[in-house]
Amino acid sequence: MRLHGYFRSSAAYRVRIALNLKGVRVTHQARHLRRGEQRDARYLALNPQGLVPALEFDDGRVLTQSLAIIEWLDETYPNPPLLPPEPLQRARVRAFALVLACDVHPVQNLKVLDRLRDLGHGDDTVTAWAAWANSAGLAACERLVASEPGPFCFGPSPTLADVCLIPQLGNARRFKVDVTRYPRLLTAEAAALALPAFSTAAPEHQTDRE
Amino acid sequence: MRLHGYFRSSAAYRVRIALNLKGVRVTHQARHLRRGEQRDARYLALNPQGLVPALEFDDGRVLTQSLAIIEWLDETYPNPPLLPPEPLQRARVRAFALVLACDVHPVQNLKVLDRLRDLGHGDDTVTAWAAWANSAGLAACERLVASEPGPFCFGPSPTLADVCLIPQLGNARRFKVDVTRYPRLLTAEAAALALPAFSTAAPEHQTDRE
Repeated sequence: MRLHGYFRSSAAYRVRIALNLKGVRVTHQARHLRRGEQRDARYLALNPQGLVPALEFDDGRVLTQSLAIIEWLDETYPNPPLLPPEPLQRARVRAFALVLACDVHPVQNLKVLDRLRDLGHGDDTVTAWAAWANSAGLAACERLVASEPGPFCFGPSPTLADVCLIPQLGNARRFKVDVTRYPRLLTAEAAALALPAFSTAAPEHQTDRE
Repeated sequence: MRLHGYFRSSAAYRVRIALNLKGVRVTHQARHLRRGEQRDARYLALNPQGLVPALEFDDGRVLTQSLAIIEWLDETYPNPPLLPPEPLQRARVRAFALVLACDVHPVQNLKVLDRLRDLGHGDDTVTAWAAWANSAGLAACERLVASEPGPFCFGPSPTLADVCLIPQLGNARRFKVDVTRYPRLLTAEAAALALPAFSTAAPEHQTDRE
């Protein structure tokens, strides 16, 4: 399998973490978003959205969308599980992940921020927009896990929630959000980054980093 | 169970469709987004994001995020299934749904469009922004199902993909997107709207419509 990604893409970062947690090895193919490599015609044939990540199988089939890829991984390689067994608790973990994957990340991704710049906005306004999206989502996430046992978001082992949280906290800091307002999330982050599955997936450890 | 929703929210509309397909009856509680009822303190205690939908159980537990609610429904009420049995095909259905739920809907929701207005943009720019998000996502979705058998997005019966598509096409038209560019999606829409589960969930049939 080949993972098309980009060192700084937090959606690709999620998939790198999940692959590591499952112990699944893939070839990494960098698609440099700042250079527009995701709009290359051959890549668009793989992923018509022109986004990373995309997971390409040896037989040519392709999966897109990080959460769909991770749910596929969890169904195909069940151990260790990334979702708890009980349906209602699974839904709570998924809801946490979706706050970040739906309501935060796409509102502050490169395409949206570039469009704000095209509308004439400068760095301060663009950074404030991205910080607003991150703050709102992280504050909600902090409350969603307030009464959950730690150290991870939902108990003693990492789930899909942590897989989405760690990349997003990286973005939040990049956009100058004061993440000390989310102490429960920082507890989960510390537990996660103590695991090589998370730490080696970080942008600064990717070979395509700038 | 009580579904907190809003007639025009396409995330709430998705859950209404899924509940209908599963034959699960709930009480509907309108949260009028334009009047800010989702920011009421009692509602924020249920859903710290201040978004709809939220599914409140009789014992006080609450599920948020439409896709998490729908996956919970699918696990708890397995028939008819909203995802196919084979993991890779499940992932393809989820990816289609996530294109709309992550990369389209949140980029053109009320909060984001209001923020664009706060930045000084008028109706034309705001509508063009929303149309841009819809067009990009729907074009990708059209290609994702190009080789799938119909009439629904993924075969002879509706899946999570159709549950997300029908509300989004409504938004796209509201933002003046020429949806005739997506003939395969319109085939799925016609099949879906022939089912009462979809048609009765539409905004125009909700009692809180304006």
